[in-house]
Amino acid sequence: MTVSEGSLIHPVILCGGSGTRLWPASRESFPKQFIPLAEADRSSFQATALRLTDATVFARPAIITAQEARFTVGEQLAQVGVAADILLEPQRRDSAAAVAVAALNAARRDPEALVLILAADHVVGDTPAFVAAARAAAVAARDGCIMTLGITPTAPATAYGYIQMGDPLPGAAGASGAHAIARFLEKPDAPRAEGLIAEGALWNSGYFLFRADVMLDELRAHAPAVLDAAEQALAQASRDLDFVRLDPAAFAQAPKISIDYAVMERTRRSGVLPVRFPWSDIGTWGALWEVSDRDGAGNALRGRAAVRDTRNSLVHSSGDILTTVVGLDDVVVVTTPDAVLVTSREAGSEVKALVEDLRARGEPEADAHRLMYRPWGSYQRIDIGARFQVKRITVKPDGRLSLQKHYHRAEHWVVVRGTAEVTVDGAVTLVHENEAIYLPIGCVHRLANPGKIPLELIEVQVGSYTGEDDIVRIEDVYGRDNA
Amino acid sequence: MTVSEGSLIHPVILCGGSGTRLWPASRESFPKQFIPLAEADRSSFQATALRLTDATVFARPAIITAQEARFTVGEQLAQVGVAADILLEPQRRDSAAAVAVAALNAARRDPEALVLILAADHVVGDTPAFVAAARAAAVAARDGCIMTLGITPTAPATAYGYIQMGDPLPGAAGASGAHAIARFLEKPDAPRAEGLIAEGALWNSGYFLFRADVMLDELRAHAPAVLDAAEQALAQASRDLDFVRLDPAAFAQAPKISIDYAVMERTRRSGVLPVRFPWSDIGTWGALWEVSDRDGAGNALRGRAAVRDTRNSLVHSSGDILTTVVGLDDVVVVTTPDAVLVTSREAGSEVKALVEDLRARGEPEADAHRLMYRPWGSYQRIDIGARFQVKRITVKPDGRLSLQKHYHRAEHWVVVRGTAEVTVDGAVTLVHENEAIYLPIGCVHRLANPGKIPLELIEVQVGSYTGEDDIVRIEDVYGRDNA
Repeated sequence: MTVSEGSLIHPVILCGGSGTRLWPASRESFPKQFIPLAEADRSSFQATALRLTDATVFARPAIITAQEARFTVGEQLAQVGVAADILLEPQRRDSAAAVAVAALNAARRDPEALVLILAADHVVGDTPAFVAAARAAAVAARDGCIMTLGITPTAPATAYGYIQMGDPLPGAAGASGAHAIARFLEKPDAPRAEGLIAEGALWNSGYFLFRADVMLDELRAHAPAVLDAAEQALAQASRDLDFVRLDPAAFAQAPKISIDYAVMERTRRSGVLPVRFPWSDIGTWGALWEVSDRDGAGNALRGRAAVRDTRNSLVHSSGDILTTVVGLDDVVVVTTPDAVLVTSREAGSEVKALVEDLRARGEPEADAHRLMYRPWGSYQRIDIGARFQVKRITVKPDGRLSLQKHYHRAEHWVVVRGTAEVTVDGAVTLVHENEAIYLPIGCVHRLANPGKIPLELIEVQVGSYTGEDDIVRIEDVYGRDNA
Repeated sequence: MTVSEGSLIHPVILCGGSGTRLWPASRESFPKQFIPLAEADRSSFQATALRLTDATVFARPAIITAQEARFTVGEQLAQVGVAADILLEPQRRDSAAAVAVAALNAARRDPEALVLILAADHVVGDTPAFVAAARAAAVAARDGCIMTLGITPTAPATAYGYIQMGDPLPGAAGASGAHAIARFLEKPDAPRAEGLIAEGALWNSGYFLFRADVMLDELRAHAPAVLDAAEQALAQASRDLDFVRLDPAAFAQAPKISIDYAVMERTRRSGVLPVRFPWSDIGTWGALWEVSDRDGAGNALRGRAAVRDTRNSLVHSSGDILTTVVGLDDVVVVTTPDAVLVTSREAGSEVKALVEDLRARGEPEADAHRLMYRPWGSYQRIDIGARFQVKRITVKPDGRLSLQKHYHRAEHWVVVRGTAEVTVDGAVTLVHENEAIYLPIGCVHRLANPGKIPLELIEVQVGSYTGEDDIVRIEDVYGRDNA
């Protein structure tokens, strides 16, 4: 096989999930695919992108993500040195619409482009095996099959759907290991899962590999409304900095349906490749414990943790809080700077229900993290009182906050690292480490980092109201409006 | 009985415990008797002091506490409006030495003064019953008995010692309910505890009521070294602000022994009054759950807490961290701003062992709280980085920090509430709310609150080293030396 654009696989990472089953580490404002969970130094999204860097196999990847996650996606890609196209969904419309966009986008370059759909939140334990599987599935996909990868089960999991294989596909596809799909099966109960495994059923991984034109044909046949909406949304998309922003009105017309229901369970062109690499969708804290390194007592300890008389437990401490467990087995303890979860390894969906409870109670920690990412860097509240709030603000080199003013607060900035360029009512000043500047209430100001290292400053806000919505944006280099 | 100084009971609160079984809320730097645990708005020490305010029964109380706790004791007494004598132990020498000091101190005013010894960390559910018990026990104490209160057990507790009663005492003492003590019994196992209760044994409360001269006689007979050390320590005591500081060298000579072993189990003059009021020594988190208000599911939730599918559990969240439990029963979850404990209701002494583990690992959270109390107010770290640290500092009206300087850091102070009087190299400035001041490295400075409301400020330290030991104290109104 020669290495040409036509023979490459075009990966598309679906990166739109919210992952509330992994609350409080994962939240709407910063969901699980962006958090180092299974690995200490990179998120599952970053690991997914790094799994696709063999340029003899994969073309430049595309990312389909939520509008709100765009700067996080860009930042995390930059951290691992991966270049990608980033397509923004104005709202969540489930996977069929995203797959349609992916197929249409790839077909622009080559109608027969091979497209690999991946989730951003899966753990794969063996990259060479994964790449080999993609190459093997590509053989059948080139023949016109919509291929999925079927993971050989290692336990009678009840959290996954299953696939029953049919006969081997004919010709080269069959020779490479691909089978027809006999049946898709919903998540089973435990005894049924045992039976399915005995019958040779596979876990439904949610990876798909297909020719763009084949998927578009099948969408036209089985989900024309999804395809129409995706076509319009892409045709009317706008470019915004480095992002392709799908047209909101057009995309909103896409029915909310998964690609499994919309196409895979209806098409006659589906196939499955049985694969064996270690894999998890880390759907729950218990699932993370399963894939984590564990000590002799079966404990997986991450961050500042100490246990005593405790077995088979997961302690995940992501702030600098010292997290301890004494005399309990099979528990999960997750500590963040503003919220703590204590549960059992089995209580997966209950955590999601808890987050809904918290939302109903109006608890901000249900959805928002204390550390908030912005295109220019990040900020986090470190203290709050009746008439004041203190934040630590980090600005990336060349980062620029919006030109803004506040109605209800004055601000004191103390630079603790790097150099700040501060504009106050038109006058520009450089503020260096161990210097401070005062921003009177109502002044029009902007903060930027003109330097080569990150700028860190402590902001002390003083006023009758310090809420995040008291920002009047006058101008913003990142195209953000006042909301 | 006429109300005269001679007929009053002189309460002495022993306030020297460290309470590591209730870590992380209770720590060496701020132990359990000072924390609101059983009651939301006052500590057990404050509740104990308030139990003694009937001036027809009790004289002005004395507090015997650790050197390090002196400002906390003073502050907490002031909060509840109780005046007391405060005696400082230079180090812990167990209860016999403290009781000897208490008896000697009372005997200075009246050799036959009635002394009531109380622990600062007990919960008593019925103050009138407690006062009535003290008055009843006083009858026998006046007759020369060393009385203890024996709590009628409500459960076969294994965490308490037991007392077997002998015959009623003769005369007025017996008429008031006092009995001789047949035997003191160590903490039993559960079946033995059942048996003891069936035999009518009582819990050993650790309250003692005696005439000073009687206790001194018995100490002289059974523990002369303790008495000698206490006499010397008190004779050579120094006055320090409002505190009586026992002489360290003399006090160090006192053998470490409890009053139970030193006197109570040896004297022939002991007696016990059986009493019935609700009582606990809150020795463990499980014991706190026992005495706490609980909801329909048996959960005691304190602070920001949410539970789902959880029963008979204690959640104690003392910071602003949202603490959640899903799908577990009979657990204890304690959240503080810098440490979290998850355990079972039964794991009492294991928590103490955990704290020893943490100490051995050098974890600062083993002993120190983030919020540190000082005679002038308090401070807590709210952020820390490679070359900076941020603190919130609260100064009481009229509070004055020491005149000091630092070798390795400059400081920026932003006043967020009240007014600061700042001295920098001899010059005095007033800094008001929403104003800031800069303290260059090496300058000699002092912070004071000249106002009528608490002063709050945010301190941003910048420098190569921001440790607490980089303070050179030049002068201090509270008599603290540089260490």
